[in-house]
Amino acid sequence: MSDLLQTLQWRYATKKMDPTKKVAKEKIDRILEAVRLTASSSGLQQYEMFVVTNDALRQQIRAHAWNQAQVTEASHLLVFAAWDNYTAERINAMFDLVNAERGIRNEGWEAYRQQLLSTYPQRDAQTNFEHAARQAYIGLGSALIAAAEEKVDATPMEGFDPAKVDEILKLRERGLRSVILLPVGYRADEGDWLVDLKKVRRPLSQFVTEVA
Amino acid sequence: MSDLLQTLQWRYATKKMDPTKKVAKEKIDRILEAVRLTASSSGLQQYEMFVVTNDALRQQIRAHAWNQAQVTEASHLLVFAAWDNYTAERINAMFDLVNAERGIRNEGWEAYRQQLLSTYPQRDAQTNFEHAARQAYIGLGSALIAAAEEKVDATPMEGFDPAKVDEILKLRERGLRSVILLPVGYRADEGDWLVDLKKVRRPLSQFVTEVA
Repeated sequence: MSDLLQTLQWRYATKKMDPTKKVAKEKIDRILEAVRLTASSSGLQQYEMFVVTNDALRQQIRAHAWNQAQVTEASHLLVFAAWDNYTAERINAMFDLVNAERGIRNEGWEAYRQQLLSTYPQRDAQTNFEHAARQAYIGLGSALIAAAEEKVDATPMEGFDPAKVDEILKLRERGLRSVILLPVGYRADEGDWLVDLKKVRRPLSQFVTEVA
Repeated sequence: MSDLLQTLQWRYATKKMDPTKKVAKEKIDRILEAVRLTASSSGLQQYEMFVVTNDALRQQIRAHAWNQAQVTEASHLLVFAAWDNYTAERINAMFDLVNAERGIRNEGWEAYRQQLLSTYPQRDAQTNFEHAARQAYIGLGSALIAAAEEKVDATPMEGFDPAKVDEILKLRERGLRSVILLPVGYRADEGDWLVDLKKVRRPLSQFVTEVA
């Protein structure tokens, strides 16, 4: 089995974290860097990451996340927050950054910019947010692999009240909306009902169809 | 730099594939297995993968995908297709499989099944589809890393007419809707405007916020 497949087999949605074990900063940094390098639609990176270590804020978030203990007991709480809308400013900022970093202007690239400018900002905010949110999930895919490669446990959570988390982290003022919580840390030595249970997936025959 | 970060740096959205170079079956299988092992909400794996090698069908899809050449010139075309809705049957099938594979019945797990059964099937189909589609994007995150680890190029595409692709692959009859195309193959030796350009991402300072 390849290293990547072993990594994916190793990870699981840790149910009980050990609050005394902290993840080293360089590991957190590599997880975040993996997310930052992840592909996104048109390369816009239409979400941001929040790394919450503040205990009081994590207690507040936990109260709006079905009281899931990992929110406060994990070493760090990562929050994926997607753009609430596409604006000309946000699109231009990214295209300008690309031009500045590459030191060139590309005609096709500029035409593509105009295409986005003439479509995204005119769409309703909810459609744009949903599209941005999907991109955050690609980043989640990278984060889960990156954490597992560091032998860091991670538990993706959608079970929370996004409006409340937005309020607690003041996300709406920044044009962001929370979409995923990802506590990262180390599994507790005992008390995790899931740790020893088999990872179950549908067999390939029910997951993949070849169209030859 | 870690291997994973190097892998993420290596990959890019290949614009020109070499149609004469085919990806070995075992590499495709490992990419699909990485997706299959990927986390999904409640472990439901609410999407399926299609591996399209049929030339005529790929030509048809390309006509509804902005004529992007990779659709036909890549070695394989992967299609991520999400559940069009949540049904009691789909939820029960996954929970039953988990019980069968683990050989146990867990009270908390059964309560969770009931919770899903009492919420998901009652919601409107579009909300459920959007939720399922997001999960496919986690799988995309895994697929991009898995392909890059195999030194296989991959170009995620949202630019296509999903209704037409659904029709071409007869997805709606199976309760599925296409959400992402992912041509995989090998970059052409020349003719790719993007291959030598720098990968640009917002700096960490504009991507990550620490809340300590």
